[in-house]
Amino acid sequence: MIPRYSRPEMVAIWEPEARFRIWFEIEAHAMDALVELGVVPAQAAKDVWEKGAFEVERIDEIERETKHDVIAFLTNLAEHVGPSARFVHQGMTSSDVLDTCLGVQLARAADLMIADVDALLAVLRRRAIEHKLTPTIGRSHGIHAEPTTFGLKLLQAYAEFDRCRARLVAARAEVATCAISGAVGTFANIDPRVEAHVAKAMGLTVEPVSTQVIPRDRHAMYFATLGVVAGCIERLATEVRHLQRTEVLEAEEYFAPGQKGSSAMPHKRNPVLTENLTGLARLVRGMVTPALENIALWHERDISHSSVERMIGPDATVTLDFALARLTGVMDKLLIYPERMQANLDRMGGLIHSQRVLLALTQAGASREAAYAMVQRNAMQVWRADGKIALLDLLKADPEVTGFVAAADLEQLFDFGYHFAHVDTIFARVLGA
Amino acid sequence: MIPRYSRPEMVAIWEPEARFRIWFEIEAHAMDALVELGVVPAQAAKDVWEKGAFEVERIDEIERETKHDVIAFLTNLAEHVGPSARFVHQGMTSSDVLDTCLGVQLARAADLMIADVDALLAVLRRRAIEHKLTPTIGRSHGIHAEPTTFGLKLLQAYAEFDRCRARLVAARAEVATCAISGAVGTFANIDPRVEAHVAKAMGLTVEPVSTQVIPRDRHAMYFATLGVVAGCIERLATEVRHLQRTEVLEAEEYFAPGQKGSSAMPHKRNPVLTENLTGLARLVRGMVTPALENIALWHERDISHSSVERMIGPDATVTLDFALARLTGVMDKLLIYPERMQANLDRMGGLIHSQRVLLALTQAGASREAAYAMVQRNAMQVWRADGKIALLDLLKADPEVTGFVAAADLEQLFDFGYHFAHVDTIFARVLGA
Amino acid sequence: MIPRYSRPEMVAIWEPEARFRIWFEIEAHAMDALVELGVVPAQAAKDVWEKGAFEVERIDEIERETKHDVIAFLTNLAEHVGPSARFVHQGMTSSDVLDTCLGVQLARAADLMIADVDALLAVLRRRAIEHKLTPTIGRSHGIHAEPTTFGLKLLQAYAEFDRCRARLVAARAEVATCAISGAVGTFANIDPRVEAHVAKAMGLTVEPVSTQVIPRDRHAMYFATLGVVAGCIERLATEVRHLQRTEVLEAEEYFAPGQKGSSAMPHKRNPVLTENLTGLARLVRGMVTPALENIALWHERDISHSSVERMIGPDATVTLDFALARLTGVMDKLLIYPERMQANLDRMGGLIHSQRVLLALTQAGASREAAYAMVQRNAMQVWRADGKIALLDLLKADPEVTGFVAAADLEQLFDFGYHFAHVDTIFARVLGA
Amino acid sequence: MIPRYSRPEMVAIWEPEARFRIWFEIEAHAMDALVELGVVPAQAAKDVWEKGAFEVERIDEIERETKHDVIAFLTNLAEHVGPSARFVHQGMTSSDVLDTCLGVQLARAADLMIADVDALLAVLRRRAIEHKLTPTIGRSHGIHAEPTTFGLKLLQAYAEFDRCRARLVAARAEVATCAISGAVGTFANIDPRVEAHVAKAMGLTVEPVSTQVIPRDRHAMYFATLGVVAGCIERLATEVRHLQRTEVLEAEEYFAPGQKGSSAMPHKRNPVLTENLTGLARLVRGMVTPALENIALWHERDISHSSVERMIGPDATVTLDFALARLTGVMDKLLIYPERMQANLDRMGGLIHSQRVLLALTQAGASREAAYAMVQRNAMQVWRADGKIALLDLLKADPEVTGFVAAADLEQLFDFGYHFAHVDTIFARVLGA
Repeated sequence: MIPRYSRPEMVAIWEPEARFRIWFEIEAHAMDALVELGVVPAQAAKDVWEKGAFEVERIDEIERETKHDVIAFLTNLAEHVGPSARFVHQGMTSSDVLDTCLGVQLARAADLMIADVDALLAVLRRRAIEHKLTPTIGRSHGIHAEPTTFGLKLLQAYAEFDRCRARLVAARAEVATCAISGAVGTFANIDPRVEAHVAKAMGLTVEPVSTQVIPRDRHAMYFATLGVVAGCIERLATEVRHLQRTEVLEAEEYFAPGQKGSSAMPHKRNPVLTENLTGLARLVRGMVTPALENIALWHERDISHSSVERMIGPDATVTLDFALARLTGVMDKLLIYPERMQANLDRMGGLIHSQRVLLALTQAGASREAAYAMVQRNAMQVWRADGKIALLDLLKADPEVTGFVAAADLEQLFDFGYHFAHVDTIFARVLGA
Repeated sequence: MIPRYSRPEMVAIWEPEARFRIWFEIEAHAMDALVELGVVPAQAAKDVWEKGAFEVERIDEIERETKHDVIAFLTNLAEHVGPSARFVHQGMTSSDVLDTCLGVQLARAADLMIADVDALLAVLRRRAIEHKLTPTIGRSHGIHAEPTTFGLKLLQAYAEFDRCRARLVAARAEVATCAISGAVGTFANIDPRVEAHVAKAMGLTVEPVSTQVIPRDRHAMYFATLGVVAGCIERLATEVRHLQRTEVLEAEEYFAPGQKGSSAMPHKRNPVLTENLTGLARLVRGMVTPALENIALWHERDISHSSVERMIGPDATVTLDFALARLTGVMDKLLIYPERMQANLDRMGGLIHSQRVLLALTQAGASREAAYAMVQRNAMQVWRADGKIALLDLLKADPEVTGFVAAADLEQLFDFGYHFAHVDTIFARVLGA
Repeated sequence: MIPRYSRPEMVAIWEPEARFRIWFEIEAHAMDALVELGVVPAQAAKDVWEKGAFEVERIDEIERETKHDVIAFLTNLAEHVGPSARFVHQGMTSSDVLDTCLGVQLARAADLMIADVDALLAVLRRRAIEHKLTPTIGRSHGIHAEPTTFGLKLLQAYAEFDRCRARLVAARAEVATCAISGAVGTFANIDPRVEAHVAKAMGLTVEPVSTQVIPRDRHAMYFATLGVVAGCIERLATEVRHLQRTEVLEAEEYFAPGQKGSSAMPHKRNPVLTENLTGLARLVRGMVTPALENIALWHERDISHSSVERMIGPDATVTLDFALARLTGVMDKLLIYPERMQANLDRMGGLIHSQRVLLALTQAGASREAAYAMVQRNAMQVWRADGKIALLDLLKADPEVTGFVAAADLEQLFDFGYHFAHVDTIFARVLGA
Repeated sequence: MIPRYSRPEMVAIWEPEARFRIWFEIEAHAMDALVELGVVPAQAAKDVWEKGAFEVERIDEIERETKHDVIAFLTNLAEHVGPSARFVHQGMTSSDVLDTCLGVQLARAADLMIADVDALLAVLRRRAIEHKLTPTIGRSHGIHAEPTTFGLKLLQAYAEFDRCRARLVAARAEVATCAISGAVGTFANIDPRVEAHVAKAMGLTVEPVSTQVIPRDRHAMYFATLGVVAGCIERLATEVRHLQRTEVLEAEEYFAPGQKGSSAMPHKRNPVLTENLTGLARLVRGMVTPALENIALWHERDISHSSVERMIGPDATVTLDFALARLTGVMDKLLIYPERMQANLDRMGGLIHSQRVLLALTQAGASREAAYAMVQRNAMQVWRADGKIALLDLLKADPEVTGFVAAADLEQLFDFGYHFAHVDTIFARVLGA
C-alpha cells in the first residue's frame, strides 16, 4: 500500500483500529448468542458490550510477547472487561475471528469499489450523452477505419464498467460469509446457532461448511474479479493515452489553465494519470495468481494463505479503489476536442468513405472490377497527396464515376449521418430508452 | 492441447469442422434476417441453406493464398451456393463471424464443463454420504488437530465445486453474446435486427455495444473463472496426494487388483493422477493473465487478442474438461481406508483429546493451572512414548485427575461422537435436509 | 503449439521421432560406459548401436497397453536389438532418460533461439546504421519531447536483444545438464561414470546432485528468461504499431506493391504482424508462472511438473522462435518514412526547440523570468495555430528576443545537429568503434 | 511491505532518507564531472558537497505543492547550497536521477540478498555434512522409494541455492547501470563523460543506450530472478512442512524447550514458519509478471512502470530478504530426528529392498519370472501385515529363495550402505573435494 496511491476510506478498513473493532463485534455478538443458548451468563455479554475496549498499542505490546495476535487482543480486552472475560471466545478458534473479519473487510472494500464504479458510471454516462453524436474516427489496428462517435466510445466504457459493477456485487457475495465453527470446523465446542447469530449481526451469510478456515476459492474469485476490473481500467486509460498523443490530440487529461507545467512547451502535457493507471492495473493483475495459489491449502487448513492476504488484501483493494477514483476524475474532466476529431476524420481526404462509394457504384450497376478501378485510381491520388486533395472532389471530376453516381449523390456518400443512424438504438440498449 | 490430456467432445468444439459449421450457421441465419428485412431475395437464403457446404481442406487451400480465413470460407461456400453467394455476409465484417463464433464455442465448452462438474458433484455427494460418519483426524498445518469425518472432507469439496458450478454458469453468460454490428460496431451497413435474429438463433444474447469486436473483459472473466476452478481441482488433488503418502495411507487412487505395477514393491502405488491434476491446474492458471492482458485492446480493436485466444481457447477448456473428468474418476473409485484412518487417529495415544480433558477438569473445579499440570505431565509421557501408551490409561491411573473426573467419565471424553454431533447439520446445509 | 505460429525446425525438436532418437542415444551411450566399466559385454553395446531402431507407431501401440512411455520405447527397441536388449537401461530409471532428454531438447531449442536473435541483431544493426542520423521526434508519454534519430531507436532495440542473447546463453547453460543417477539419485545401481560419459557424449554437463529428477529451478530460470525475451519483442512490436498509426505513419510493416489488401482504402494497412507479436508475447509470458510453480516438487520428486512441461516445453519455445523470426522479418523489411518523420518533427512549428531557446536567452543575460515570458508568449501563439506558424519566425520578429539573441543565432538553435552530436558515441558503445 | 515480514537493513534501502542521499550523491558527482569539463565553476561543486543537505519533511512539503519529487528535492537542496545551486542538475532530466538511483537501490538490495544466500549456504553446508550419512527414506510421489541420506537432501538444497547465488549476481549486474543522458537519451545537453564519472563513483556501469529511461528488460530480469529464488525457498519450505507432518515427523521447526505452545497437546507444533515462507514465495512470484509487463514502454518512455516499481521494488526485495533469513533460521535450528527416519525406513518391513532382492535372485540364476514370484509372495505378506513382519525374515525362511541366495547374503541386500556408496562423490561434486 503506497500512500500516494491510497484513499483514506479504503485504507481505514485495513487499519488495526478497524480490524480490532470487527474482532470485538464478532466476539460480543457471539456472547449474545451464547447467552441466548444458556451457555454463558447474561452479565458476561453485558460486560463485554459495556466495558469492552482495546488499545492498538497495548495489543501490539502483548503480541510482541505472545506472538499471537488474537490472544493479544483477548488479553487486552480482558483487561477492560474484567472477570466476565473468561466467557469470551468460548469454543471458538482464532480462525473464526480472523476469517470472519476478513469477510467483513473484503465486503466493505467491495462496497467502496461498487460506489467507485457507480461514480465512474455516472461520469461516463454524462459524457457519453454529451458526445453522443460527436463524430470521430473509429480505428482498427490503430488505422483509420470508419466513422463512429465519441459518445459510442464512452458508452462502450460505460457498458464495460456496468458489467464490472455486477461482477463486484457477485465477488462481494462470494466472500461475505461467516464461520464460527471451531477447530477443524466441526462445531464440537460451539453451537452452529452462534455462527448464525454472528453472521446475521455482521451482515454476512453462514459458511455452509468450513474447516476451521473459510475456503479460499471464495477469496480467489474475489481477487480474480479485481483483476478483471483492473484490465477494464487499463483499457480506458490506454484509450486516453492514445487520444492524447501529439499527432492525435483528440482528448487530454485535464490541465488547469493556470497549472504549472512546461510553460515554454505548451504541447508537453503528459497523460501521466492514465499512464499511472496502466501501471496500477499491472499491480492488481499481479495479485490474482497468488490468490489463485492460495486455494489449495493442506487438509483442513494451513496458514500459507495468511501472509499473502496480509499483503494483497489491502494492496489490491486500496490500489483498485484509488485507480477507479482517479479514472473517474480523468473522465470527468477530460478535455475533449471535437474539432480535432473532425480534422483527423478529414485528414485522409475522405478515403474513409471509399468503401461506401464502391458499394454505391456497384449498386448503380458498375461491375465490381470497374467500380474498384474507379475508386482506386482516385483514392491513390488522395493517398499520395497525404489527404491534401479531397476524394470527393476527384470523384466529382471523374466522368466515369459520375456516369454511375451523380455528383450530388456522391456528396451524400460522404455524409457521417449514415454511420450514426443506429447510435440511438445502441444508447437505448445500454442506458435504457 | 495435448492428446493425452484431451477428451474428444471438447476437442471437437475447437476443430475446424465445428468452427466452419458455426460460421455457416451465423451467415445463413443472417441471410434469413436480411430476407425478412427485404434486403436480399428469399431465394438467396434458401440457396445458402440448401446448397451451402464447405470442405476444410479446400478452405485451407484458399487461405494459403488469401491469408484470410473468413474470405477463404466465403469463397469455398460460394463454390457451392452459386450466384446467391453474393448476398452472403452483406454488411458484415469478419469479426462479426469470428467473435460470435467464439461466443458459441466458449458457451458450448462451458456447457461441457458444467456437465463435468455435475458428474463430479454426484460422485462427491455419494461418497460424502457414504463416509458421513467415518472418523478421521482433522489436520491443521499437517499436524493432527481434532477428529472430523471423511464425509465432511468430501462435503467441503462438494460445496466448493457447487460454487464452481455457479461460477461457470455466470462465466458462460458473460461470453454467450452475439455481435453483428459491422465495421467499428456502428451498424452503418447492417440493421441491428439482423444481430437480434442471429443471436436468438444461435442461443446467444445481443452484445449491447460492440466495437467491431466483442469486448474482451467478458473473455477475461471467463478464463479467470476457469483459473479458480483449476485451483479447486488442485486443492482436492493435493488432499488425495497427502492421504496416499506412505505414512498416512488413508486413501489411494484406484488400483485394479490385477493392475500391473511394481509387483515386487506393493507399497509403490503412486498418486500419479492427482499429481498430474496439480500440473494441469498450473497450466490453466497460467492462462488467466494472458486473458486479462487481452482486455486493453487499442481503440475500437486490434488483433493482439487473436493469437492468445487461438491457444488458450482450446487449451484451457480442453485441459479443464479433462482435469474435471479425471478428478471425477479418481474420486469415484478412490480407495478409502477407514481402519487406517482410525489407526492414525489412535497413533498419538489419545493426545488429540487432551484439550477436552483439560476443559472437563476445569469445569469439574480444578484451577486452570492445576488442570494444565495434570494433563501435561500425562500427555508428555504419551508423547515421549510415541503414542504407544494411551493417554486415557494414564489419566485413569492418575489419582489427582480421577479426583476431579471419574474414570468412567474420562472415557466419555475420548468419545469421537462428541465431535460429530453437528455433522448432520452441516450436511443438511450443503445437500439440503 | 499452433501450426500458424510454428516453424518446422523448432517443431522437429519436440516431435516423437526426435525425442525417441535422443532416448536411444542416451541409452546407447550409457551402454558404452557400462562396457567400459565391465558391467555389460561389449557385444551388447555393439548390438544396440548397430541394430537399434524404433518406430513411433509401434511405441504408441505398446504404450497404450503399458501406460508407460519409456517401457514402451525399451520394448520396441528390444524387438530390434534382440537378446542384448536386456543390458539396456541397466541401473537407470525412466527419469534419467526423460530429464536428460528434456535437457537436450531445451538446449537445442535455445540454440535455435540464439540463432534467431543473431539474425534479428544483424537486421537491427544494419537498419540502425542505415538510419543512424535520420531525424525523428523522441516521445515521452506519447508526446513530442526532443529530437532523436531513428537509428538510435533501433540501436536501443539492438542493445536490448543483445542482452537477450546473453540471457539465452545463460538459460541454455542452466538446463543443459545430464542426470543418470538412478532411483532417488543415489547412484546405488549405476556408477556415476556412466553419467559423466553420457553427459559428454550428449553435449551436456553433469548435474551435481539430482534426486531422480533434475531440479526444476533450472527449467524455471529458462522459461523466465523466455518471458523476458517475449517482453522485449513486445516492446519493439509496440513501437512499430505506434509508428504505423494513421496519424503518425513514420514506418509500416512491409506491404508488397502488388499485395492484395484494401485496394480502395490505401491507408488501411494494418500492423497485424506486430499486433500478433504482442499477443504471442502474452502467451510466452503466461508460461513463466507455471514454470516457477514447478520448482517446489515434493521430496525427491513428484510428477506434477510433467504435464506442465509437455505443454510449455514445445509451446514456449516454438512460439518464441516464431515470434523472433517474425520480428526479424518485420524489421528487415520495415518501410521507413524519413520525410514523414521530418513532417512530424515540424508539425509543432518548432516548439520542440523552445527549451533550447530559453536556455540561450538566459545564457545571453536575460533573467529566467523574462526569458520564460518571451518564449512562452511566442510558443503559445504557435500552439494555438496548431503549428502552422513557425516559432522561429515569431522569435525573429520579436525585438525583445533578438535583443538578446540575434536572428542568425536563433536559427542555430533550431538545428537538429545539436541533438545528434553524441550519436556516434552511443553507436560506438553498442556496436564497437 | 509488511512490518512483520521485513528486516531493517533492507527496509532502509527504500526509505526516503536513503533515496534522497543517493540523489544527492548523483547530483554532486555530476557536478564534479561538470567542473572537470569546465562547464560549471569549481566552487559550485564544492558548495554542493560542503553545504548540501536535505530534510525529508521539507521535501514532502514542497512536493505537495509542485507535485514533482525531483524538483522538490532540488528546491530543498538549493535552500542549503545557496546560489551555486543553479548549477546543480544542469543538462539532466529527472529520470537520470530516478533511474540511476533505482539501479543503486536494486544493486544494494541484491548485495543484501546475496549475503542472505551466503548465510543460508553456510547453514545448509554445515547441516548437510552433519547428516551426510544419516539414512532416510527417499520418496517419489510421496511414496517410499529407496533409501537416501538426509545430508543428500540438504546438499541438493545447497546446490539449488548456490545456483540462486549466481543468478542473483547476474541479476545485480543487469540493473547496476547508470544513465545520465538527458531528455530522450541523446546527451544533447550533457556530455557523456558526466555519465561515465557518476557511474564509476556510484559503483555502476554505463548504460550503453538509454532513452531518458534505463530499459526495463533489465529490471524484468531482476524480478524474474527473484521469482526463481522464491520458488527455491518454497521447495525447501515444502520439504520441511512434509517432514513435520504428524505421521512423518522426521524433522521439526525449532521449538525452544520452554517455548509456550499447546502444552497440553505436545504434538501440536505447527510448521508455521515454513508455511509462511510458502505464502511469501507466492507473493514474490506474483511480482514477476508486472515486471515483465513493464518492459514494453511506449516510444522513448512512458511512466507506467513507475507505480509498479514503487510497489514491487521494496516489496519483492524486502519480502525475499526476510524469507531468506527466515529460511536460514529454520534450517539452522531445524530439529532433525534420525531415529524417526530410521523408524520410517523400517516401517515397510524392508519392502524398499525388494528390488535389490529381485536383482540378486536373477543374477544368481533365477529366471525373471521365478524371481518375481518369489519376491512378490513374500512382499505381499509384509504389505498385508502393514510392515509388522520383516521381509528379510520371510525370505530367509523361504527355501526357494535361499536356494538361490544364502541367508547371510540376503542380509547384505538389506544393507543401507549399498545405497550410500556414492554419497562422498556427490558431496565432492557440490562442495569440492
